[in-house]
Amino acid sequence: MAIKVHGYPFSGATQRVLATLAEKELEYEFVNIDLRTGQQKTEAFLKLNPFRQVPVLEDGDLTLFESRAITQYLAHTYADKGTPLITSDPKKMAILSVWTEVEGQRFDPQASKLGYEIVIKPMLGQTTDEAIVAQLEGKLAEVLDVYEARLAQSKYLGGDSFTLADLHHLPVINYLMGSKIKSLFDERPHVSAWCADILGRPSWKKVVALMKH
Amino acid sequence: MAIKVHGYPFSGATQRVLATLAEKELEYEFVNIDLRTGQQKTEAFLKLNPFRQVPVLEDGDLTLFESRAITQYLAHTYADKGTPLITSDPKKMAILSVWTEVEGQRFDPQASKLGYEIVIKPMLGQTTDEAIVAQLEGKLAEVLDVYEARLAQSKYLGGDSFTLADLHHLPVINYLMGSKIKSLFDERPHVSAWCADILGRPSWKKVVALMKH
Repeated sequence: MAIKVHGYPFSGATQRVLATLAEKELEYEFVNIDLRTGQQKTEAFLKLNPFRQVPVLEDGDLTLFESRAITQYLAHTYADKGTPLITSDPKKMAILSVWTEVEGQRFDPQASKLGYEIVIKPMLGQTTDEAIVAQLEGKLAEVLDVYEARLAQSKYLGGDSFTLADLHHLPVINYLMGSKIKSLFDERPHVSAWCADILGRPSWKKVVALMKH
Repeated sequence: MAIKVHGYPFSGATQRVLATLAEKELEYEFVNIDLRTGQQKTEAFLKLNPFRQVPVLEDGDLTLFESRAITQYLAHTYADKGTPLITSDPKKMAILSVWTEVEGQRFDPQASKLGYEIVIKPMLGQTTDEAIVAQLEGKLAEVLDVYEARLAQSKYLGGDSFTLADLHHLPVINYLMGSKIKSLFDERPHVSAWCADILGRPSWKKVVALMKH
């Protein structure tokens, strides 16, 4: 049965799933949920995700939400298609899981809030809180110091090849690269090279192209 | 080879791993890292976890950090021991992953910050910020409304049996049960019954007993 994604091309969580589908070379139907007009708040959407957020993935009779759960499902279920975004080696998979958790628990909370302060707030006519920005920049710099050391020893965060542990970062890094926070990545040579590598993947370019329609 | 846990019995993340080891009926050596005296900041500990946080698990030549990555590793590697905290059914596993992500991305950020404001700050002689508490309480209530609906249809969050999706909640729920936030759980009958069920598990009682030494 066909895969269906309910999402919004400008949502980072939606982009995470679309990048995974592109890496796995999977066909899908995209159902646009326009967040600007509140389409995620309808009763119909509530049945798909009680948290009223995009994305939602339907695959046959299975309905999933939470972007990182969806990417894991796709990587496991379609293991033999496209890029292997996980590994069947249990020890290597454990290391990969460590770095997937690092993204979700350490990188994303700081990086997403930074994006909100310096990109979204000005768009909404609100004032960026510079004290919060300074605090978050400090915390993100500490995380990126650990990434720099890791990427000096390992080509990718999760191991020798590109996996979900890298892919999950793409939307927020892409977003911050258009802001003054870019310098935090540029200052660290291994982090900078890693960003250029993962942002240059054809799968990610396909996702970026969807934002330009 | 023997399993070794570097942790601190009062750390929620440490408790998450200890509860998993108890459910899996695994023997382990516990290395106490006293956070009060900054033992997580030593050079020796930095080699185990560049983020300088507990817990760290060593299993033979494998060293892992991030509590949720460690629990997943234990659940997969020791699948045939103790309680099956995951499932081998791919569709059921996908649903389980959704609720594991919900804990990490939606429940924990609100619940942990609430714990910090109303339990830790007073302990440190600092003043609880009531405006932040009110905001976090509102957000946690929304999450618990979704849990109430889910638990009205499913005995546990991840499915019909107790899994990592439930277990990951234990430390923070145990913590909040000793505060005024308890009422948020008590007000919702299915959430309340679920809390009583999971907090009553022998594995969790073993973890609680470690805090009383």
